[in-house]
Amino acid sequence: MAQSKLLFAPGPLTTSRTVKAVMMRDLGSRDDEFIAIVRNIRLRLLDLAHASADEYTAVLMQGSGTFGIESVVSSVISPQGKLLVIINGAYGRRIAQIATLLKIENVTLDYAEDCKPVPQEVEAKLAADPAITHVAVVHCETTSGMIKPVEEIGRIVQRHHRSYIVDAMSSFGAIPIQVAECGIDYLISSANKCLQGVPGFSFVLARRAALIATEGFARSVSLDLLAQWRGLERDGQFRFTPPTHALLAFYQALKELDAEGGVPGRAVRYRSNYRMLVNGMRSLGFQEYLNPADQGYIITSFRYPQHPNFDFKKFYKLLSDKDCIIYPGKVSNTDCFRIGHIGHIGEHGTRKLLRAIRQTLAEMDVQPSKE
Amino acid sequence: MAQSKLLFAPGPLTTSRTVKAVMMRDLGSRDDEFIAIVRNIRLRLLDLAHASADEYTAVLMQGSGTFGIESVVSSVISPQGKLLVIINGAYGRRIAQIATLLKIENVTLDYAEDCKPVPQEVEAKLAADPAITHVAVVHCETTSGMIKPVEEIGRIVQRHHRSYIVDAMSSFGAIPIQVAECGIDYLISSANKCLQGVPGFSFVLARRAALIATEGFARSVSLDLLAQWRGLERDGQFRFTPPTHALLAFYQALKELDAEGGVPGRAVRYRSNYRMLVNGMRSLGFQEYLNPADQGYIITSFRYPQHPNFDFKKFYKLLSDKDCIIYPGKVSNTDCFRIGHIGHIGEHGTRKLLRAIRQTLAEMDVQPSKE
Repeated sequence: MAQSKLLFAPGPLTTSRTVKAVMMRDLGSRDDEFIAIVRNIRLRLLDLAHASADEYTAVLMQGSGTFGIESVVSSVISPQGKLLVIINGAYGRRIAQIATLLKIENVTLDYAEDCKPVPQEVEAKLAADPAITHVAVVHCETTSGMIKPVEEIGRIVQRHHRSYIVDAMSSFGAIPIQVAECGIDYLISSANKCLQGVPGFSFVLARRAALIATEGFARSVSLDLLAQWRGLERDGQFRFTPPTHALLAFYQALKELDAEGGVPGRAVRYRSNYRMLVNGMRSLGFQEYLNPADQGYIITSFRYPQHPNFDFKKFYKLLSDKDCIIYPGKVSNTDCFRIGHIGHIGEHGTRKLLRAIRQTLAEMDVQPSKE
Repeated sequence: MAQSKLLFAPGPLTTSRTVKAVMMRDLGSRDDEFIAIVRNIRLRLLDLAHASADEYTAVLMQGSGTFGIESVVSSVISPQGKLLVIINGAYGRRIAQIATLLKIENVTLDYAEDCKPVPQEVEAKLAADPAITHVAVVHCETTSGMIKPVEEIGRIVQRHHRSYIVDAMSSFGAIPIQVAECGIDYLISSANKCLQGVPGFSFVLARRAALIATEGFARSVSLDLLAQWRGLERDGQFRFTPPTHALLAFYQALKELDAEGGVPGRAVRYRSNYRMLVNGMRSLGFQEYLNPADQGYIITSFRYPQHPNFDFKKFYKLLSDKDCIIYPGKVSNTDCFRIGHIGHIGEHGTRKLLRAIRQTLAEMDVQPSKE
C-alpha cells in the first residue's frame, strides 16, 4: 500500500494510524452501536466548547465545512433578516457570497488580509444599523492564519442583542473557546481539522433556543439545520445517509484528543509545532506574511523568497517528493505559500519538513535573503 | 477491532476489505495523485453509463445521495421551469419536496407504492402541459424495490423535448443503463450503493450541453452543480474539501467492479443473491410486498408474518446478534421489512442470512403461514 505523506495543510490533514484503522468496518447507519456513537460524539463536542447540554446542542451535517456554513446561513436567518459579515480573507468573503446567492440581505465590514478587525467598528456598525439581525465572523482566517477577537466581538454582538455566528473551521479543538461566554449562537467546524478526523462532515454547535426559533427559514432540504437536528433528536439517526466510516474515525479521534489532554493539550503541541517551524523558516531566510502578534498557531503564510530561482510549483513538487505536502497561498495581494501546524504531527514531522525545505532550497539554488 | 456485520441494506452496505484498506492513507486534496484519481473516477463513471465523454460529463458532489439530488434539482431548473415528478414511493416524494421547498413549480404523477407508473400517462401529462420543462423519475424505488421503465419514459420525454432527470441511486452499477439512449440529461447516484464504495459523496452524470445552459440557476453555493463541474474541469480539484478517503475507496471499488466483469458481472451476482434469498424466504413462509414481475434484484420488501409472536424490533435484534443487519420497511400502507441484495455479499452471505432467519423464527416461536 502507498505510504501517506505528511500533510502540512489546513485539512485534510495527517491523521493517526489508529483513527484510520477504525474505518476497516462497515457499520449500518441505523444500527444501535452507530446511533450510540453519534450520540456520544454530539455530547463530546459540547464538552469541548464548554457548552451545557441544556443550553446548546450539536448538529452533524454531511459534506465539507462549507456545507456546514451554508447550512447555518441558509437555515437560521429569517426572510426579513440581515447579516453583517466581518471579512479579512477568502473564508469571510465566502459567507457573504453564500448570503448573497441565497438573497439574504447582507453588509460587510472589510479589512485587508493582514489587518485585524476592529471591535469598535463592529460596535459602530451595529449601533448605526438596527436592521442587522446576525453577525458572522471567521475565528481563524485560514487565508492568512490570523486569529480574530471572537470573544470581544461576541460581547458587542450580545450587548446589541443580535445573533452571533462563528466560523471556527480551522480553530475548533486547538484554540480554547467558551461558546456561551462569547455569546455564540452558532459555531461551525469540521471533522478533518484540529479534531484530526477524516473529511466527510461538518458540525454546528447551536444555542438550542435560537435554533428552535428558526422554523420555516430553511432554504434547502439537505442543508436544513433544524430538520437535521430534529432527526438526530428523534431517533439518533441522520435524515440522509451519513458517512459512517468518517464518523467512526471521528469518534476515535475524539478519544485521542482526550488522551492528549483535550484542547489545552493539543494547543501545546500545535503551538510548539508552530514555534519550531517559524524559527526554522526564519533561520532559512523566510518571512511570515502576518505580523507575529496577529498570527495564530494553526497555519502560517510565508512570503515567496525574493530570489529569481524560486518557483513555487517546483518547490512544492520537490517537497512532495520528500513526502512533505505544503499548501499554496490564498492571500490576494502577495505571493505566499502556507504551512499548517495541525494534524497528527509533532516535533519529528516538523523537523523533517524543515530538513526537506533546507535541502530543496539547495537543490533549487535559492538563498532567501532577509530584508 | 470489532467485526463488521453483514449489511443487507440499501447502503451503507458491506464493502470489501480491500476497498476499506485503501483508506489507511491521508492524501492531500490538491495532490497530483489525488487529482489523477478524481479524473479517472469521473471518466470511469461515464464508461459505466455507456456515455461518450464528448456528450456527457461526471460531477462528484460531497454529501449523501440526497445532496446529489438536491444539487441537480436546485441547479438545473430555471426560475420559469416546471418539474414533473413521477412518484410511487418515498424517494420520488422527496424530489417533489425539494422542488417545493426551493419554490420550483412542480406537479406530480402519483401511483400507489405497489403500482408501476404508466408511460402513456406521462405522455398525456406532457402533452397537456407544455409548461413542464423537466421530468424526474426514480429508477429503483428503494421504498419497495420496484424498477421503473426509465427507458420507455425517456423516449416519451425526448419526443416532447423536455429535460430528463433520473434518480439511479440504488440501481447504478447493477442495472445496465445507457444514458444517451434513454435521453437522460442528469443521472444521480451515490458512492455507497451498487458501486460498493463507502458513503461520503454522490455523483451526477450530466449531458454537457444541458449543464452548460444552466448558468445562473443555482439556488445554493455548496450544491451548485455547474460551479462544481467548472472547478473540477479547471484544475481537477473540488471547490470545497472532498472526502479524500471515501474517494480512494471508490477508486478501488471501481477496479473491483471491473474485475467482476463490470455492470453485467455484478448484475449476475446480485440477481443470484436475490433469487436465492427470495426462494429461501418463500420456503420459510414469507411473502414479498411487490408482484414478482415488478420486483428488481436490488432490494426486496417482505410483509410481516401474520403471527402474534412476530415483533420486528425483536426480529431485527436477534438477526443483528447473528451478525446480519436487515432494514426496516418504508412502504406506507403495509407492515414490511426490507432485505438488500447488494454490496460485497454472495452465496455464502445470503445462506448465512437465511440460516439466521430460520433460527430466529424458531427462537421467537413464529411460523409464518402462507395465505
